[in-house]
Amino acid sequence: MSYLLMRAAERAQLAMILEVCAYPKPGNVDRCHDFPDTRLEHFLASTIFARTALEEAEKGVGRIGEIIKHAVRDTNCHEGGNTHFGAFILLIPLIFGNGIPGALSAIEKTDVSDAVAFYKAFAMTSVKMNATDDLDVNDPHTLTVIREREMTLLDVMQHSAANDMVAREWVAGFPLTRRGADLLKQFGPGRQAIVYTFLTLLASEPDTFIIKKHGLAVAHETLLTAREVLDGKHSLEVFDADCIERDINPGSIADIVIASIYIALGEGWSWDS
Amino acid sequence: MSYLLMRAAERAQLAMILEVCAYPKPGNVDRCHDFPDTRLEHFLASTIFARTALEEAEKGVGRIGEIIKHAVRDTNCHEGGNTHFGAFILLIPLIFGNGIPGALSAIEKTDVSDAVAFYKAFAMTSVKMNATDDLDVNDPHTLTVIREREMTLLDVMQHSAANDMVAREWVAGFPLTRRGADLLKQFGPGRQAIVYTFLTLLASEPDTFIIKKHGLAVAHETLLTAREVLDGKHSLEVFDADCIERDINPGSIADIVIASIYIALGEGWSWDS
Repeated sequence: MSYLLMRAAERAQLAMILEVCAYPKPGNVDRCHDFPDTRLEHFLASTIFARTALEEAEKGVGRIGEIIKHAVRDTNCHEGGNTHFGAFILLIPLIFGNGIPGALSAIEKTDVSDAVAFYKAFAMTSVKMNATDDLDVNDPHTLTVIREREMTLLDVMQHSAANDMVAREWVAGFPLTRRGADLLKQFGPGRQAIVYTFLTLLASEPDTFIIKKHGLAVAHETLLTAREVLDGKHSLEVFDADCIERDINPGSIADIVIASIYIALGEGWSWDS
Repeated sequence: MSYLLMRAAERAQLAMILEVCAYPKPGNVDRCHDFPDTRLEHFLASTIFARTALEEAEKGVGRIGEIIKHAVRDTNCHEGGNTHFGAFILLIPLIFGNGIPGALSAIEKTDVSDAVAFYKAFAMTSVKMNATDDLDVNDPHTLTVIREREMTLLDVMQHSAANDMVAREWVAGFPLTRRGADLLKQFGPGRQAIVYTFLTLLASEPDTFIIKKHGLAVAHETLLTAREVLDGKHSLEVFDADCIERDINPGSIADIVIASIYIALGEGWSWDS
C-alpha cells in the first residue's frame, strides 16, 4: 500500500503520532518528556479517539464547526486536558476539502452555525483565551453576540488571527502549514525532518501559545534561541531542558507541524526510514 | 465518556498504544527503545492501520481467519516488519465474541476457510515458524495439506500450542490473558501496572518467542531474571539493557499483555492516572 493511497483520516492520525513522538522537541510533550498532567499516552489516546470525527471530515459533507466540536468531544474522555484542539482546527478543513485549496473554499462557506458549534467545542477545552479577547468562551453571552453579529467561523478566526497563529492559518491560506510541508520534503525522509521543520518554524515565527502564556518577549527570545540551535550555536538538548524548566511550550507550532506532516504525507514524503 | 462505554475497536487500539509505550519493558520496543528495523512509530502506525479490521471484528459477523488476514494486510504497509500479528490473533476473537466466553465460542466455530485465511496472513508476515513445524507457511503445499486434513483454525492452534503461547491461549481458554487482566487491576491504575504485569507473566512462563529465537535455556534464564527483578534482587534497568544487548525480546508475552489490557479496560481498570 502506498502512502499516497492511505485514507485521509489515517494520514491525519499518522501525522498526529509522528509529531508527538519526534524528539527532542523543545518544551513540548515528546517521546522523552511528559508534562505533569499531560503525557505522551494522552496525545496518542486522543489520536485514536479522533478517528470518527476525522472520518466525518473525510466524507466532505456536513459542517466544519460541528465536526471540530465532535473531535473535541470525542477526545475529551481522558484526564490529560487539551491535546489536539489546534490540530483539529487545521486538519478538519484540510481533510474536508482534500487539501489547502479545498479547505479554503470550505472555510469561506462557514456560517453562524459553525461559529456557534466551534465556541461550544472551545468551552469543552481548557484552552486559554487571550486576555484582550471580548468573545469569552466561558461567557454564555458570547453565543448571543455571535448570533447577533452574524459571525461565521471565518469571522471568528479573523477576529482571533492577530493573537493566534492557528486562526491565522485559516485567514491567510495555510502559509505556515504549506511551508512546513515543503521543509519536511526538503529535510528528507524520517523523523529528524520533523524536528528540523519544527525548529525552523519556531525560528521564524513567535509561537502565539507562548505569547498567551508568557508574553511576547519570552516568545521572541524562544525564537532567537531556536535560530541559534539551527546555526549550531546552541545545544538542542539544553534548549529543550530550558524550555521545560520554564514551562515554555510552543504548542501552536506543534499544531501547525501536524498539519504540515499531513500535507507532506499526501505528497509522498516518507516518514518510514 | 466512561471507558466502559468506549467502543471495542478503540479499546483494542488503546491497549496496543499503552503496551508499547510502557517502560522499561525488558528487551522490547518501548518508549525508550527501538529495534534497528522496528521502531515505536511502526507499532503506533500499525495501531492506526488496524482500525478497519478491528471494527470488522466489532460487528461480530464474518470469519475470524479472514479478519486476522485483513488486520495483517492493512498493517503491512510500513517498513517495520511484523508488529502486532500475535496481538491480532488474541484481540480479534476477543472483540468478535465480546469477551473470553464469546471468543471461545467463536473459536470453536472456525473452519477450514479460517485456517486457510490465517496461513495466507502468516505468509505476509516475517514471523518465524518453529523449526519442527511441518506446516510451513512458505510452502504452497501447506494450504493443500490443511484442506486435505480439513483442519479448522482451532486445529491449527492446537497443532501450534506446544510451541507457541499465543496459540495456547486459544486452546486453553485465554488463561494468561485473564491472569494479566487480573494483575493489572491488582497493581492498580496507571502505566506502572503494565510494567509489573509484564514482568509477572514473564517470571511465570517462558516466552515462546524467545524459545524460537534462542532456545529454551535462554527463555528460562530470562524467566528467572524477571523473578529476581520482582524480588528486588536484580535491577530492571540492567535486565532491560542486557536483553537488548543479547537481542532477547519477549514478544509473545507482549502480545498477551495487549490482550490483558484490552480485557482490563473493559472491566474498569484505569490507565489514566
